[in-house]
Amino acid sequence: MPHEAMTSIPTAETPQEACGVVGIFSENSKINIAPFCYLGLYALQHRGQASAGMVTSDGNTLWQKKGLGLVPDVFGKDEIEELPGYGAIGHVRLATDKDRHAVNTQPLAVRSAFGSLAIAHNGRLTNRNTLEAGLLQSGAMLQTDTDSEIILNLIAKSEETNLPKAVAKTLRLLEGAYALVILSQDMILAARDPVGNRPLCLGKMETDPEAFIVASESCAVSNLGGKLIREVEPGELLVLDKRGYSSHSLLPSPKKAFCAFEHIYFARPDSILSDKNAYLVRKAIGKELALESKVNADIVIGAPDSGISPALGFAEASGLPFETGVIKNRYVGRVFLEPNQARRDLAVRIKLNPIAEVLNGKRVAVIDDSIVRGTTSAQLITLLKDAGAKEVHLYIASPPYRYACFYGVEPSNQSELVARGRTVEELRTLIGADSLQYVSVDGLVRALAIAKEDLCLACFTGEYPISSNPNGD
Amino acid sequence: MPHEAMTSIPTAETPQEACGVVGIFSENSKINIAPFCYLGLYALQHRGQASAGMVTSDGNTLWQKKGLGLVPDVFGKDEIEELPGYGAIGHVRLATDKDRHAVNTQPLAVRSAFGSLAIAHNGRLTNRNTLEAGLLQSGAMLQTDTDSEIILNLIAKSEETNLPKAVAKTLRLLEGAYALVILSQDMILAARDPVGNRPLCLGKMETDPEAFIVASESCAVSNLGGKLIREVEPGELLVLDKRGYSSHSLLPSPKKAFCAFEHIYFARPDSILSDKNAYLVRKAIGKELALESKVNADIVIGAPDSGISPALGFAEASGLPFETGVIKNRYVGRVFLEPNQARRDLAVRIKLNPIAEVLNGKRVAVIDDSIVRGTTSAQLITLLKDAGAKEVHLYIASPPYRYACFYGVEPSNQSELVARGRTVEELRTLIGADSLQYVSVDGLVRALAIAKEDLCLACFTGEYPISSNPNGD
Amino acid sequence: MPHEAMTSIPTAETPQEACGVVGIFSENSKINIAPFCYLGLYALQHRGQASAGMVTSDGNTLWQKKGLGLVPDVFGKDEIEELPGYGAIGHVRLATDKDRHAVNTQPLAVRSAFGSLAIAHNGRLTNRNTLEAGLLQSGAMLQTDTDSEIILNLIAKSEETNLPKAVAKTLRLLEGAYALVILSQDMILAARDPVGNRPLCLGKMETDPEAFIVASESCAVSNLGGKLIREVEPGELLVLDKRGYSSHSLLPSPKKAFCAFEHIYFARPDSILSDKNAYLVRKAIGKELALESKVNADIVIGAPDSGISPALGFAEASGLPFETGVIKNRYVGRVFLEPNQARRDLAVRIKLNPIAEVLNGKRVAVIDDSIVRGTTSAQLITLLKDAGAKEVHLYIASPPYRYACFYGVEPSNQSELVARGRTVEELRTLIGADSLQYVSVDGLVRALAIAKEDLCLACFTGEYPISSNPNGD
Amino acid sequence: MPHEAMTSIPTAETPQEACGVVGIFSENSKINIAPFCYLGLYALQHRGQASAGMVTSDGNTLWQKKGLGLVPDVFGKDEIEELPGYGAIGHVRLATDKDRHAVNTQPLAVRSAFGSLAIAHNGRLTNRNTLEAGLLQSGAMLQTDTDSEIILNLIAKSEETNLPKAVAKTLRLLEGAYALVILSQDMILAARDPVGNRPLCLGKMETDPEAFIVASESCAVSNLGGKLIREVEPGELLVLDKRGYSSHSLLPSPKKAFCAFEHIYFARPDSILSDKNAYLVRKAIGKELALESKVNADIVIGAPDSGISPALGFAEASGLPFETGVIKNRYVGRVFLEPNQARRDLAVRIKLNPIAEVLNGKRVAVIDDSIVRGTTSAQLITLLKDAGAKEVHLYIASPPYRYACFYGVEPSNQSELVARGRTVEELRTLIGADSLQYVSVDGLVRALAIAKEDLCLACFTGEYPISSNPNGD
Repeated sequence: MPHEAMTSIPTAETPQEACGVVGIFSENSKINIAPFCYLGLYALQHRGQASAGMVTSDGNTLWQKKGLGLVPDVFGKDEIEELPGYGAIGHVRLATDKDRHAVNTQPLAVRSAFGSLAIAHNGRLTNRNTLEAGLLQSGAMLQTDTDSEIILNLIAKSEETNLPKAVAKTLRLLEGAYALVILSQDMILAARDPVGNRPLCLGKMETDPEAFIVASESCAVSNLGGKLIREVEPGELLVLDKRGYSSHSLLPSPKKAFCAFEHIYFARPDSILSDKNAYLVRKAIGKELALESKVNADIVIGAPDSGISPALGFAEASGLPFETGVIKNRYVGRVFLEPNQARRDLAVRIKLNPIAEVLNGKRVAVIDDSIVRGTTSAQLITLLKDAGAKEVHLYIASPPYRYACFYGVEPSNQSELVARGRTVEELRTLIGADSLQYVSVDGLVRALAIAKEDLCLACFTGEYPISSNPNGD
Repeated sequence: MPHEAMTSIPTAETPQEACGVVGIFSENSKINIAPFCYLGLYALQHRGQASAGMVTSDGNTLWQKKGLGLVPDVFGKDEIEELPGYGAIGHVRLATDKDRHAVNTQPLAVRSAFGSLAIAHNGRLTNRNTLEAGLLQSGAMLQTDTDSEIILNLIAKSEETNLPKAVAKTLRLLEGAYALVILSQDMILAARDPVGNRPLCLGKMETDPEAFIVASESCAVSNLGGKLIREVEPGELLVLDKRGYSSHSLLPSPKKAFCAFEHIYFARPDSILSDKNAYLVRKAIGKELALESKVNADIVIGAPDSGISPALGFAEASGLPFETGVIKNRYVGRVFLEPNQARRDLAVRIKLNPIAEVLNGKRVAVIDDSIVRGTTSAQLITLLKDAGAKEVHLYIASPPYRYACFYGVEPSNQSELVARGRTVEELRTLIGADSLQYVSVDGLVRALAIAKEDLCLACFTGEYPISSNPNGD
Repeated sequence: MPHEAMTSIPTAETPQEACGVVGIFSENSKINIAPFCYLGLYALQHRGQASAGMVTSDGNTLWQKKGLGLVPDVFGKDEIEELPGYGAIGHVRLATDKDRHAVNTQPLAVRSAFGSLAIAHNGRLTNRNTLEAGLLQSGAMLQTDTDSEIILNLIAKSEETNLPKAVAKTLRLLEGAYALVILSQDMILAARDPVGNRPLCLGKMETDPEAFIVASESCAVSNLGGKLIREVEPGELLVLDKRGYSSHSLLPSPKKAFCAFEHIYFARPDSILSDKNAYLVRKAIGKELALESKVNADIVIGAPDSGISPALGFAEASGLPFETGVIKNRYVGRVFLEPNQARRDLAVRIKLNPIAEVLNGKRVAVIDDSIVRGTTSAQLITLLKDAGAKEVHLYIASPPYRYACFYGVEPSNQSELVARGRTVEELRTLIGADSLQYVSVDGLVRALAIAKEDLCLACFTGEYPISSNPNGD
Repeated sequence: MPHEAMTSIPTAETPQEACGVVGIFSENSKINIAPFCYLGLYALQHRGQASAGMVTSDGNTLWQKKGLGLVPDVFGKDEIEELPGYGAIGHVRLATDKDRHAVNTQPLAVRSAFGSLAIAHNGRLTNRNTLEAGLLQSGAMLQTDTDSEIILNLIAKSEETNLPKAVAKTLRLLEGAYALVILSQDMILAARDPVGNRPLCLGKMETDPEAFIVASESCAVSNLGGKLIREVEPGELLVLDKRGYSSHSLLPSPKKAFCAFEHIYFARPDSILSDKNAYLVRKAIGKELALESKVNADIVIGAPDSGISPALGFAEASGLPFETGVIKNRYVGRVFLEPNQARRDLAVRIKLNPIAEVLNGKRVAVIDDSIVRGTTSAQLITLLKDAGAKEVHLYIASPPYRYACFYGVEPSNQSELVARGRTVEELRTLIGADSLQYVSVDGLVRALAIAKEDLCLACFTGEYPISSNPNGD
């Protein structure tokens, strides 16, 4: 793909979700649906902060607005009002190395033999290279780097007689993880990959019994004042139209493989995934972690923000007092520092503020959700010790993260994973903790209360549930 | 096409050119070509102020940067430096009603079976609807409203063995007016429609004997310090690559039909089109106008800015003194006025400042290039009379503009043309002039010094040189 | 004061601190001090988000940069680098109704008989009207609404022989609450009002034994990698210059009256004020609140973010489990909603996300820091009940807030305080809680561990420690 | 004055006027005056493009809006609507080296013993340093670098019983050049310095017989649809209030000294100054220049834009044809060029586009208004020769500019004047012209048709009409 000129993007310190999607269809109501879709996007903002977009349908025309930045950067009062219609899909995106250009913002809207269509999706196709080669060979051309454009091209070429059939036929060609929503003039189609790797749920608007919602997380449904109906099934293709919602077809789903990291980190604490609340799952992981570990500490603290929930469970199970040992500065934006080391150390203190009076002289158990590159962990440990902590014991609420994800979670490059090729002890030395303990895979599975064979644990075990690998590793 | 939400754009008061294109290829030189392409775009800014864009090739990758606004709004120092390579094409665009969205900015860059390609073009295809229908039918999908995307799709589907052949084959499918530049990893292709309606010229860089330029106007070549070689021939397909430039093929050109409005209004005064300098042609039109007209005036003035050149010729031929009767405020941007009529009248005075001491008690001959909607002419006449002019005689340096253009000039809607269905006398009454005289078609042709049969005069005569009509009028 | 045209500012739902100040002087070091002052401002961002500014001295010239917005909005890399010198003062400001204009951003820099001076301050003068009238009478003119300009005018008119004497003389004229820093070419002066109402502390840079810091809160010192030395004494005037720091003079301080709300809400949890850590004080208030209250609840939650710390203490003292019952959306900026009530209710859900699985069927004890206008409390209670809470018992970690503050805390208008003229029971009914309990004044004082007579509790008791009242209430 | 951090401003190539002022008072009309003041500012935009501002009075409160940039950058629809009232003053400013900071934007609004006041002025005080020292000594403090602040301080300290008396008393203390407007709650005061160096005129609104206007140039009056009444007399203090306008007092004016450069360059061509139209004066200068010179040329061209008017007169007097030899690119904003000389030469070609077909083989007489630093002239001559001109003869429509102006025109630094210390022949060699001829002082005076003793010709003759010199040169 032709590249837009850009400056480098700082590498993220946590695993990064690529996207969130939402779709609402309410043909029989008289209200504009865009303001609701906007609220849904706001609820999914944690899944992607690089761009936001929405496409609506008024029955004849599709209207779109998208741009770089957060939801409130892209959508002001005017933008929302200028999106008419009763059907809408929306998207928030995390910019990854491969996928950071303005041209790649979603939803992607096109004209085709099926009329105007727009698509938004979360996940990654593992047979994308093969599909792309076939499309180019057959005379198609591609303007973006998105899987969305591949999928739309396949739909456009399907030679089926109607859109649901064309989508169903296309889904059979896809390998990989996806949760996708497609808007046409008169319907929304929503689909989830056969192993159910990426989350997608179905809800209904309370104020409007004929309006239905699909969204990456249930928090979008509840933020709209709606009710969660159920998850979209792995392999299911749903149709939302003026008759309500219906299940159009179901791809065979020989195995489920729901991404464990959704519960560990990605999902908003109030979301329900696989019928479980994310916050309570995190507390349960913290409990398992405490039960599995040798704990010699005076206090338990969470690494803000994502370590707080497992830390509460850890404290409960260990009987140790939960404390606030370090707070996160809510106002930190860009920080400019001069290029001498003394001051670079200060940058961490801007973002994370230790409370010395809590830490001083204490043996501190710190709970964090995961270790990706290790830099942040090392800085946190130094910070706590500088603030007076006698010992810092780091507890991680997920197993060692050693295998890159090919299904839409960043980093997708093995070499960026600090735990790759290192023992826990080597890692402990590297980051400077007095002890380092991870929850076991079995402990994690117990906390999730989902059958182990229904989970994708590839990033911990290397056992990838979907065979293809786009990187050829 | 799905629409982006936008507020209305004020209607233009002059005929509007859609675009300007430029391409430079210099594989053997060691310099970055982007800064030169940028200077070329600056020289073509008068052909379009709504968006600007550039794509460069470093031999492997295409790099692009485009955006809404003027050339200096889109391209700062950083943007130029981040476009590496020795081949570049650029585009400036006027946003028309149909073509105002960000998604329609050019160049358009894609991946295809021929590798990465980018295209920029000026003009309009008259068989676009047919081509689009065929493409959608065959499974293609379209993301923009541009003719560029249609052309690229046809190239991608051509099944030819190399790019020049694919482009040549595609050109045979196109009807309408176009001047286009295509960039691949290792060449630029430039083509002009068979009647040569839109301008396109070939030049060379003086500092680099192996670097060649194609551009909508020669002013881009001279602004780069280059030399004009010749016009691209009607129907010609040129290839610029590491061997220099070569004429790849020539579509049959049974008739030439160069747009007369390029000389009347669009082109920059220092440009050479059809081997003639635009400024001198404009003076010549003014002379013809004076010779054809009954002139009872004390002074000659030009309507700023485009009436100044013909006014100089008019004054010379009539023997009347040329004066500055009204000046244009160079700083006018948006003007906000309260919604009462008294103040709305003041808005014209902000933009056009009459010099009462020059006009007072005089019979004034005002020369303007054309009348489109008539509003500006009426305001100008009122302004001059309010400033003391005893009589205002309006002379127009083109024949009555009564037929909409289907080849890329706005307005493309007949109903916006005030001269449509009105006699000159009716028009004179409407705008309030003491007399109104147009140059004749023959007078215009004499001034242009181009054979009448080699010109497109459709907007004056209704005789369209290219048969198809996309609007079905 | 002439007003700048502005749109309305939404009313705040918590008591609002007006400002934060910082000053650093390090004549003997070779380093630029601006980057450190910038880090100090970042640490004080929670004290004011409307504007930020900095003035530096290089020994000859004062250099300034200030603007509306957050610290990173005003200060980029370039802005910091263009502020040379070894002395600096900085300011962050909350825009109140009276003080929201660009002209009122601080520091304020002037030329005077003492050379160039700049001032930044936190607090409010209660005899401002009298001082202003006297100044205008004597021929002075005022360009801002700030107390800072009044103070600088008095210094300029002091007729003393040097700056410290002029400042000391001026301080004797001031009534009210203030913490101020003044920068001249060769020194910083720092002063605190005689009752010590507003906080101000002294610290030293660790990397530079001759560099000293004054700041509203110790977190600015620790964020710079410095060490807290002590509080500036009530009535004290400190001088920081090339000889280090020295106490120039001390106004008589018959009574101390430190603002209790600094510990309750304003200060950052890691700050030390009156030798006490704010986070630990908040936990202690939560304990007192639990001990004083009748608690019939199943779980304890904090209203995010400021209710979390007292909730931890409350849970500890009551023996009830601490839970996360509601989370705050970190990405919320402006939210646009259509003007129908149904959707306005949704706005709260965007900002506060209840976790139904935690709340469902529970009797919930919610801890919040204070009730100002009551709107947020009512919304929170509704939210929790809608999410399934069986009962909601609201506990407030401060006594009823019934008297407006005249010393720099907003709102300064009695009528905005919902507890004014209402019994606790009336208030409970109004906001819809199942029970409502405040900590007592004595309980608060016990938690603060500061002598009651050394505190300003005026907003709870109506006993104002400083007599004058600028509003004439 | 404390300095704001800024990047360097490119040096101007023409003499630069510091400012334009406008004031309108219309107590008896019901309309808001701000939209009219805005139109007046638009008309004066050519006098200053660095900042714009307006203050209005509704009888009680002064309302202000000002900012950096052009009038339409500072004033949108909302800003204008938020300025209520029937009295208004406005200001546009050129940023000079000394006066470029945001803090120095005008009008300056203050509170004083006379209530709220705002001032805007054009010109420069020559005894400013003395006045400032006296003010600081007496305990005043200064926040800006403007003469406006000095003047307001003197008014505030005047101890007179009403504002007109206070202003009249203050004017007696001022030395230098000024045209100033002062707004209070219920009147506008307008004053012009005793030699009448800076222009200021009085007009009336046509739509409102009781509304009067003061403005730097009559074009502001005519742009508002008003009528010019007369010039404000040298030394006159006018009062505009609800009774209309009245002449309050007259300072003794032993000598007039109206700035000749207003007619040569600064004023807009449609303005009337000293009862003469600027455009006709410029043509007259061109005629004098032709009559005084030896002219051996084939064509006459003007250096755009300011050389066009004298060129028309020159052509008329010499009998040579007037031609458009070079055009100015209307779209040029910032131009970025790489740092090698070849391309830097290209920058001139972007801004100035020669028409080779007009120039080729010709002996060209180029008329320009003045030579300041000489760089532009040299570039223009090179450009014309590169485009084919056989000879380039440069004619300057003002005498050699050898003495810096101390009354408000930039550059105020002698060393920047290329004609300083050079003979005309030396200068001709330096810039590369085939001949160089200036109009004589007497020729200029004849064209102006103003008595030589009533003009300030100091920049040509070194005879300064006002004794003091703030620079001590």
